[in-house]
This record gives sequence, C-alpha cells and structure tokens, in this order.
Amino acid sequence: MKKSVAILGATGMVGIRYASMLSDHPLFRVVAVTGSESVGKRYGDAIGSRTGLRISPEVVEMVVSPTRPESIDADLVFSPLPTEAAKSLEPKFAKAGFRVVTDASPHRMEPDVPLVIPEVNPEHLGLIKWQRKKRGWKGFMVATPNCTAAGLALLLKPIHDSVGVERAIVTTLQAVSGAGYPGVPSLDVIDNVIPFIKGEEEKVETEPLKMLGDFRGNRIEHAKFQMSAMCHRVPTTDGHMESAYIETRDQVDIPGLVKELTDFRGVPQRLNLPTAPGRPIIVQDAQDRPQVKLDREAGSVPGMSVVVGRVRRGLTSKSVRLTFVSHNLVRGAAGSTILVAELLHHRGFLE
Amino acid sequence: MKKSVAILGATGMVGIRYASMLSDHPLFRVVAVTGSESVGKRYGDAIGSRTGLRISPEVVEMVVSPTRPESIDADLVFSPLPTEAAKSLEPKFAKAGFRVVTDASPHRMEPDVPLVIPEVNPEHLGLIKWQRKKRGWKGFMVATPNCTAAGLALLLKPIHDSVGVERAIVTTLQAVSGAGYPGVPSLDVIDNVIPFIKGEEEKVETEPLKMLGDFRGNRIEHAKFQMSAMCHRVPTTDGHMESAYIETRDQVDIPGLVKELTDFRGVPQRLNLPTAPGRPIIVQDAQDRPQVKLDREAGSVPGMSVVVGRVRRGLTSKSVRLTFVSHNLVRGAAGSTILVAELLHHRGFLE
Amino acid sequence: MKKSVAILGATGMVGIRYASMLSDHPLFRVVAVTGSESVGKRYGDAIGSRTGLRISPEVVEMVVSPTRPESIDADLVFSPLPTEAAKSLEPKFAKAGFRVVTDASPHRMEPDVPLVIPEVNPEHLGLIKWQRKKRGWKGFMVATPNCTAAGLALLLKPIHDSVGVERAIVTTLQAVSGAGYPGVPSLDVIDNVIPFIKGEEEKVETEPLKMLGDFRGNRIEHAKFQMSAMCHRVPTTDGHMESAYIETRDQVDIPGLVKELTDFRGVPQRLNLPTAPGRPIIVQDAQDRPQVKLDREAGSVPGMSVVVGRVRRGLTSKSVRLTFVSHNLVRGAAGSTILVAELLHHRGFLE
Amino acid sequence: MKKSVAILGATGMVGIRYASMLSDHPLFRVVAVTGSESVGKRYGDAIGSRTGLRISPEVVEMVVSPTRPESIDADLVFSPLPTEAAKSLEPKFAKAGFRVVTDASPHRMEPDVPLVIPEVNPEHLGLIKWQRKKRGWKGFMVATPNCTAAGLALLLKPIHDSVGVERAIVTTLQAVSGAGYPGVPSLDVIDNVIPFIKGEEEKVETEPLKMLGDFRGNRIEHAKFQMSAMCHRVPTTDGHMESAYIETRDQVDIPGLVKELTDFRGVPQRLNLPTAPGRPIIVQDAQDRPQVKLDREAGSVPGMSVVVGRVRRGLTSKSVRLTFVSHNLVRGAAGSTILVAELLHHRGFLE
Repeated sequence: MKKSVAILGATGMVGIRYASMLSDHPLFRVVAVTGSESVGKRYGDAIGSRTGLRISPEVVEMVVSPTRPESIDADLVFSPLPTEAAKSLEPKFAKAGFRVVTDASPHRMEPDVPLVIPEVNPEHLGLIKWQRKKRGWKGFMVATPNCTAAGLALLLKPIHDSVGVERAIVTTLQAVSGAGYPGVPSLDVIDNVIPFIKGEEEKVETEPLKMLGDFRGNRIEHAKFQMSAMCHRVPTTDGHMESAYIETRDQVDIPGLVKELTDFRGVPQRLNLPTAPGRPIIVQDAQDRPQVKLDREAGSVPGMSVVVGRVRRGLTSKSVRLTFVSHNLVRGAAGSTILVAELLHHRGFLE
Repeated sequence: MKKSVAILGATGMVGIRYASMLSDHPLFRVVAVTGSESVGKRYGDAIGSRTGLRISPEVVEMVVSPTRPESIDADLVFSPLPTEAAKSLEPKFAKAGFRVVTDASPHRMEPDVPLVIPEVNPEHLGLIKWQRKKRGWKGFMVATPNCTAAGLALLLKPIHDSVGVERAIVTTLQAVSGAGYPGVPSLDVIDNVIPFIKGEEEKVETEPLKMLGDFRGNRIEHAKFQMSAMCHRVPTTDGHMESAYIETRDQVDIPGLVKELTDFRGVPQRLNLPTAPGRPIIVQDAQDRPQVKLDREAGSVPGMSVVVGRVRRGLTSKSVRLTFVSHNLVRGAAGSTILVAELLHHRGFLE
Repeated sequence: MKKSVAILGATGMVGIRYASMLSDHPLFRVVAVTGSESVGKRYGDAIGSRTGLRISPEVVEMVVSPTRPESIDADLVFSPLPTEAAKSLEPKFAKAGFRVVTDASPHRMEPDVPLVIPEVNPEHLGLIKWQRKKRGWKGFMVATPNCTAAGLALLLKPIHDSVGVERAIVTTLQAVSGAGYPGVPSLDVIDNVIPFIKGEEEKVETEPLKMLGDFRGNRIEHAKFQMSAMCHRVPTTDGHMESAYIETRDQVDIPGLVKELTDFRGVPQRLNLPTAPGRPIIVQDAQDRPQVKLDREAGSVPGMSVVVGRVRRGLTSKSVRLTFVSHNLVRGAAGSTILVAELLHHRGFLE
Repeated sequence: MKKSVAILGATGMVGIRYASMLSDHPLFRVVAVTGSESVGKRYGDAIGSRTGLRISPEVVEMVVSPTRPESIDADLVFSPLPTEAAKSLEPKFAKAGFRVVTDASPHRMEPDVPLVIPEVNPEHLGLIKWQRKKRGWKGFMVATPNCTAAGLALLLKPIHDSVGVERAIVTTLQAVSGAGYPGVPSLDVIDNVIPFIKGEEEKVETEPLKMLGDFRGNRIEHAKFQMSAMCHRVPTTDGHMESAYIETRDQVDIPGLVKELTDFRGVPQRLNLPTAPGRPIIVQDAQDRPQVKLDREAGSVPGMSVVVGRVRRGLTSKSVRLTFVSHNLVRGAAGSTILVAELLHHRGFLE
C-alpha cells in the first residue's frame, strides 16, 4: 500500500524533477500537484513542452491545486517552493498535520528543524520529536540542504570521520539549472562566467556545519571547522563542480583516503532504499575527471552519486585537494529529498 | 626609425595575435613571419579566414619563412613557438645574435633567463648581462610567463608589497583559446568543465615565485610564499578567470588594499610605453563582477588590464579573497611580450 | 548646433545600444532617457553592470524620466519601446509634436507610416507629409524594420533591382539578443536549437515587401514577390544569420550579381552620413564565411554592414542561393534607426 | 546462437557508439575491434575517458586488432572507417568473404552497392546478388547514408509516397559530433555558426534520390525530384535539425499528411527488429518543437526516431514546410547500420 504524496510548487524546475522521479515510485503515489498561477490547469499544460523528462500519464493529467493545506490530502508533502512562499506556507502545512520535506531554504537553519542527508546524519531526524513538542504541531518539517552544500557535505562526511576537517576552502563552478527556470538569461552566460550567486556562499559556509554536527536530543551542536566558499556560475546546464582545498587535523594518507571515500556507505545503502545509489561517492582516477557532462549522471541511481577525482596532497601533509561533480537537481534537490522521505517511511514517521 | 621584428611561429593562435598587435606599432615594424608547414605561402592564406582581427595588409602579403636564424634578419624576434620547437630553436636564435623575447615555456625557469612582467619585475632584465656572459651569446633570451601566471603575478605584486603574501590558494576557470588552435574539441567543452590542464598547475605554482623574487646580480632569489593551483577549462573563448584565497603576513585592511590595487602603477606606466595600460589593475565594485565577457577587454589598451572584484576578507584578519579576469592572449601572451620588447627598446637593448 | 534627442525605454537591451551609439554623436545630443520601473533612478544604476558598451558619462548620470510627452523636450525621440507600450505611447508623442523614429513593431505596417532602411527606400519618407495631414499631427512617426527583415531587405534590394526577385525562401539562425533581456533562458538554448520565434515569420514575410514597394504619393504599393520564412533561435549572442534560396525573373549571372552586391551604395553613402557604412553589403568569398562571430562587426561602422557569402546558383538558372550575417542590434535595430534620423536631419525634417 | 561481428575503426566517435549499441545485443556478439594507431592496446585504454556511454566489460577488455581481413574472423563487419581508409579497405574485406555494412561515404553511390534505410528501401538489398556476381565477391558491401541524408530520406518517404515530392529545399543546423572527434575546434563554434561543411551538401542532394529510387533487378533508378541543401554547423553536441520547404506533385492536406507521417511504419517495425523504433517518425504538435536537446533521444529506441514539427503549408497549396530533428550518431550512423544488419540477418544473408 503506497503512501500518498503531494508536490507543492510542482510546476517549477525542481517540481518537475520530483514529478518525474516519483512516477512509478515503489513507496509513494502522487495524489496532488500544486501551483500558483497555474491553478486549475492540467499539469501537462502547465509545464508545457520544455522538458525531456518522462512523467507518468496519471500525473500529467492531474489538475493543479492551490498551495493550501485545505486543498490537498496526503501522507507527506514535498516542497520545492520559492523562498518567500516556503517561508510562510510550509509551517502552515506542518501545523495542519502534514509531514513536510522541504528543499527550500528559509527553515533549514532553525534549531529544531533537522537538515538531513540520509547518508550523512540520519540521526538528526530525532529532532522531529522535539520540534513537534515545542511548536505544538501534529505534522513536522524536515529540510534538505542547498544544492551545492549537498554534494559537499556528503563528500566531507567520510573525510571528517577519518582525518578531521579543520578548514575547507571551496570554489564552485555551478550549472544554470541551479537558478531555476527561467533563471539565468542566456545573454549572461554564453561565453561568460559570473563570479557571484546571491545568498549561495552563506549557505555553503554554514549548512555543512549543521549537517556534520552532533545530535544532542533537542538541538544540534554544529561542527567546528572553518568554511570558505567562492561561487561561480558557468555555462553548463546541469551538474555542479566544486574544487576544494581541505586542511585536516591528522596527516592524510591519499590512497587510504581514496579507500575511505570509495568504501563509504550510509544508512540508505544498508536499508537498500529505492533512491539510494549503490555507492554514494564514486572515485574516478583518470586525471581529467570528473567532468560535468560525463559524470553528473554516474552511478546506479543517475544523479545520486557524487563523483570525485584529482584527489591529491595539498601544500602540507595535513591537507588534501580534490574536485567533485554532483547533480544539483537530483542529489542537490529532488533526489535527496525523496531519499529523506523514504527513510522517514522506513522509520514509521508516515504512519 | 622603427626597429625590425620577426614573429616566429606566426601562424598559430598567439602568432596571429602578435601580427595584429604589431600592425601599425609605433616602435616596431614586422619584417618576417615564420612557420613550418606553411613555409612559402602568403601569410594571409596560411592563417585562412578564422580570425576577425585586423592585420596590416603589408603583413598579410608576406611570404612565410622557415624558422631558422639564417632565413631572417631582424633586431628582435618574438617567439610564441610550440614547446618542443621553442626548446631547441630559441637558443639557436639567441646564439646567432638575435634578441629573443619568448612567450613559450621551456626556458622560463632557467636561472639566467629573466622571466618578466614589466610592471612587476623590470629589474630582472639585469640578468641579460650575466646570461650573455655565461652562455657566450651575442643575442639573448627573455621570457614572459604562462597565460594564467601572468595576471596572477601582476595582481599579487601590490598585495605582496603591502601586506606580504604567505600562501595563495588559486582556482582557475580558463578559456579555450589558452589551448591554442585547434586546441580543445568542441565536444569536450560544450555544456562541460574539464578540471585538468596538462602542465598548467606546475607553472602557476612556480612562475610567480620567480617573478616576485629578488634580483641578486647573477641570479633571482625566488619569493618564499606557498602556491596552490587547481586549474579548470570552462566553455569560454577568451579570458581567464581566477579566484584566490590569499593568506598574508600582516592584517589586511580591505579598503586600504583596494586602494593599493587601484593606485598600482609600474615602470611601463611611468615611461608611457605604447602597450602599457593606464591602469594595470582595475577594481570593479559591482558585486557580480568581474565577468569574463564584460571585462576581458577592459582598460585603455584592451586586454592589458587585470580586472579584479569581490575583494573581501577571508576566514581570518590576515587573509583576503578576490576574483579576477585577465585576457590570456593579450596580458597572458602577445601583449605582455610586446610590452617587454618596448621596455627593452627604451633601455637600449635593441641598439 | 546638435539636435536634441530622447531615448524612450532606454533601459532595455536596444535602449542601451542607442545610448552607446548616441554618445558623442556629431549631430545628436541625448537630453532625456525614459523608463517605467526605473523612473527617478540614475541611468547608470538602472542599467546595472550587465553591458560592456561605452556610454558617455553625461548620459550615465541622467535621471530616468517617465515615458510621457509632457516629461521631455527634444527635437526627436527614438523608440525601442516594448510592443504594447509602443502601440499606445508612440502616437501620443507624435500627436504632441514629436518626431518619432521607432524600432518597435506595432505601427510598421500602417499604410501612412514609412517603414524605412535609408539605403533601400529613402523616398518612402515622402509619406510623412500625408501622414501629418491625415492624422492632423504636428509631429510624425517613422518606423524601421524587424531585426531579421532589416538585413534581408537590404540584401534583396540590389538583387531585386537587377534580376527581379520572384520568390525568397529564407531560413534564419537568430541570436538570443534578438529576444531582449532577460529574453531566452539559458536552459532553453545551451546545446539546443528552438525552431520557433513568436511573431517573427509573419514580420519577415511582410515587411520586406513594403520596403521594396513603390511610393505613390499617399501610399506604398507593396512589392509582389513571395516570401517564406522559417525562423530558428540558436546559441549565439549577437548577429543573425540567414540562408536564402531566391528565385528570380531573369537569369542570374553569379559573378555579375556578386559585383552588384559589392558595388551597391545608397543615399546614406552618397551623403556620407555619420552612421553609414562605407559598403552596406560586403561579399566574403572564403567558402566558410560569413560566420556570425567573425563577421557581425565587419565594415567601417561596426554592425552596419551585411556580410554575404556562399553566393551560388540554385536549382535553375533563374535562382541564386546565399548566406548572410547582419548584426541584429545595430543594422537590425539602433543603427538603422539612427541612420534614419540622420537622413531626416539632412532633409530638414528636424527643423 | 548470436552472429559474430567486428567493428572496423572502433576507436572513433561512431565506432564507440557501435561498441555501446552492440553491447548485449540479442542477435550479435562483438568478437573484434580494429584500429590503426591503437593496435595492440586494450580497447578501454584506446578510447580513454571521453565518453559517458556504457560498453560491455567484455568489449572494453578486448585488444585492438589491425584493420586487415586476415586479422579477424566474423560473420559481419561494421565499418565507420574514415573516408580514405574505407575506400581501399572495404572492398578488400568484401572480396575476402566478409559481409560489410558501412557507414562510410566512398562507395555509397556506386551503382551496384545498395544504399539502405530499412524503413525506406529494404528491397534495394536485392542488388547484393548482382554485386557479388559482377565483382566476383564471396562477401558483399551494403552502405547506409550520410547522417543528414538519413533522417531526411526517412521523412521524405511517406511524403513522396502520398503526394509526390517534386522539389525539396533543405537548410540544416548540424551538431558538432557530425564531424567526429576531435572534429570542430571549440574556438570555431562557441557563439558562432559556420555555414559550410565540406562535401555535405553534395551528399544531401544526391543520396536521398538513390534511396527513394526504384530497384530494377541490377540497378537503381534514382528518384527524379530536385534537391537543394544549405548546411550549417551550430553549437550543439548531438542531433541534426533540418528545415525543409517541399514542393509536391499533388495538393497537400496538412492534417492528412500529419497522419501519414504518424502512421508510417516500415519492414523493421513489422519484423519487430531489435533496433527498430516503434514509430520511425514522431510528430510533435507543440509550436516550439522539435528541439535538438529535447527530441534527439525521443522514442522507444533512443535516437532512432525522427521527430518532426511545425508541419504547415508553404506558399502554394502544393507545398509543405516542416522542421525535424534526427540523432546524427544513431539514426544517422550506428543505429541505421545495425538495423540494416538485423534485416540482413532476418533475410538469411548472414548464414
């Protein structure tokens, strides 16, 4: 018996990705899609012809509902709502009894909201109990990270566990789909790089510290290391690349670290959740990999693995440099969030 | 009375840039262009129709000579030869009495070869005397840096002078013209980033240390700070972007440093050399600048100024982060080298 | 004594191009720039940092006025207004006594509005007299064509005059700047072609017939030949390419036709108007030209010449095939319109 | 029992596509891959890391053989050899008893070589008997068309059958992968269009006439209609777009023609061959489709369907205009050729 789910803001770029990934999902059945200007339209007409993704006919034929708790009935709602809408609407849904899993940013850093990557910090879901109690909600709210922070935190996890991250200096080369649709004007990005993405660096410098922090019953003690982010928009469609210079507490043995990355598995892999990739981190040893176009869909669940390469020593023996690619719309958005929902389902949170 | 110059390897991407920048030059007159497979062809036919640059009709009509000392007669030769050819041919030219200014890499790090950016280390030309003596050459060889190292060293100069660079962690986003022509296949770069450029990181990590080093009569004492480079090829045509995290000896006052950068002038500016830009470094304060397409041709001599922006504190008070754009074919190749030749001319080295 | 001009809708993509081309213009002085949401802002702030074009400091410092006749005072207004605004506002300006030269589409095909390319049909300006009489206006309205129709009509002029065009089957490959800013989302155009541009084919199929028509005192008798247009958006920034298969009344002698194209000059060339290119049409004989990037800025006034190549026979002796590039923002917008204003000035219409 | 096949020139762009499409093929088993400079290398090393395609481990581990009949043993050889190599080598293989199915161009227009698209002209395989007799070969040679001609001929087939094509004026917008690897330099194609592809227009203007011609026992009587092709290289990776203006013998009823296109099926569909798409032609009715990125992999066998849209009347009632997208490496190369091999297998030619 599948659980019923709704997609809030389903006509946006990430919303469409949800609709596709939830088509024929073994645990979930989409029962509602919501929008704002498109309310009352057939979903297929609302999203038009701008995607090559496959979406089940059942969803394509749905009529878009308004984004209000009273308009839908579902065991769980996925929220890729725009920031302002998410800020006001998500708490209303949670208060009205919905389990909300959100990819939007406004509530991520609130102390009683778990910010979760299932392979990294599944134990943070323990905050839900406290959140409900404190806010008096029947439902709850769980967040997933920023698209750039998602791949980064996943990659830092085994490094932090083995040699202790003290400082990470990260430079990103981000795809245009990270800005949604219509997003970046083509005139701004053809033959160009823009070294600024509004609000991005702040998120990349804080979210990983929460996710790599320790769960203390009713709060998260953030990790202590330092983060620097310099973010760039480059002319690629999907897939964020990040190059990191990482200083560590302990000496780094490169082959040993490569093995840690390769062998890394998390709770989703042990539970064999439907959207869990076989290997969360894939190490490429060709000297000119990872590449955005060749590696963004790598792995057993396309777009869910982080592909890392050029793993090499930094300027001291307590440092490492590396480059990785992570699919911003899958591991960085819809995929991570669906994986959280699968974990919630397994843990009985959707009963 | 203009000095006569020859362009070796004139049919390559950088060679064509020389031919254009030397058309109607106030101090130099092109008297020969050399090539290998194109020997005997009209220069205009040899370079075909693949450039929009203006080249003087006189040069277009020249017949391509072989790259041999005995085939040409000139006061100075510019060498953008391919690495292997430069390695063997440039010393032959210098031995035969030619003054060689080279943009090629093989001799840059030799102890008696000055590696010069005229705004950064004009005093290193003092090595020429020693070089001639040691090698017994009538001519001499002066080198200019790698296209990525050029803008970087120019930018580091006023920073090093004011607050002392201790470590620079640099990530580059480089244009395809840096690989020459035909260079990067379009299939490799459309909708893609390649995080590897053969030999590039080694050059970026060593050349600035030589250029920012001290001239000690018969040798250069290299600067001592640490350099890390992570190089990426992105889908842009011209203009390298670099983002740097710089640790310093002294506390950094950001407005003060911005003023140092803005006010920086070098010998070429004081001498008012023809190819010297009014301001070697232009500081952009818009939060989304510099951008490759908008800033690569900035300044009074297009392509000769480094445009820097997003100048902000790093993780400690003794650090600064910034992003800059530098035209790889002008400041990073033909422009820098012509500026060196102008300085040599002014100092009487071409008599 | 320069004539005073205002730019309506000056903050759009074409408006900015006007501001740049009118900086330091020998005949015109910009005295006002208008906008809608940006009213009251400094013009430089309103347009932000998204252009590399040079605009005179005097214009940059202007305060944006509302787009109302009572808010400005000028001898002539240039209008690159959006379609809906142009529809209602331009007649108001003309009625209020302004001479309006418009690049917008809504009034182009009205029988008493001259649609003019100065090299093609300067005599159509004769309609102004009739227009003023019929509408009872003190001012008047003159239009310039769609960006794709502009280059096409200019190219067809000497062909029609020499061998008679009977049918033109045109396929276009248009740059994204034709859609304005923000215009085409980058996600829609990276690694893609879109074979549809709303309203474009209708304009390309009708406007040239009006421009190549005959002036009959109080009306234009449209040319009679047939036009087919298939329009495509391709991943280029500036410069529209068009490939045409043209059937003619007379036999086509290709070398003869190439000479007609090369020798073509119009009234602006004879009058030596400031924005008139030396050669309105440049014939490239290299087999792989024209190319968008290499030829869009060709000629003595960058962007004002149409560059044509691959001129060859079609399937019969009464046909010709060719490909050309024309800069959509210059010859296709701001440049053409300024050239019309220069012609109006010469003919005493601005007294 | 699978038939054994070899891939000649397996390290090229199309060769790699064969290796991928033949991995786990139900009828064929790859037993050899050949090359020139890569002879003796492991196939996986020879092709490096530049593709994201999946190739079976068995093939990846093969050692590259020289391209000589005596070096391999197989029931059939696929040849995507470069032109010059194909010219001399393919007849040697056929003479030595191999069944050769070639995607290369040199033998396509020879009178006794069938040039086949299985949905269009399967009966042309009847030439094989005559070819063997005339040339005294034990083996034989069958060709598939140029990548641009393939989609075009497939689309013209149902049109020609229903209303009679009299003239087709075709303009192409071709992807860079059509030029192979390394192929088009990125500097030539970023922000650019090149209106010339060497040899392409001649092929597009002749090959469809042979394929749509009639089999007369020992020769093909070519179709009589006229073809004009104007070919352009645009900045897309895979997928050729073509816009055609078609004049017909009979009046065109657009809805009727759309139905003919939609309902079109060929022998491969009736036989349910493994690589046959369910619908060879897919009609898109959204006004902005087909698009290269969204439609190049459409259909039940990705890349094997031609997607057509914007089907509309031309300038007369006996004409039609349309735009289509066809995957140049699949329907235009490896896919078509494998489909021919499947048909040969079904007809007993591989016994």
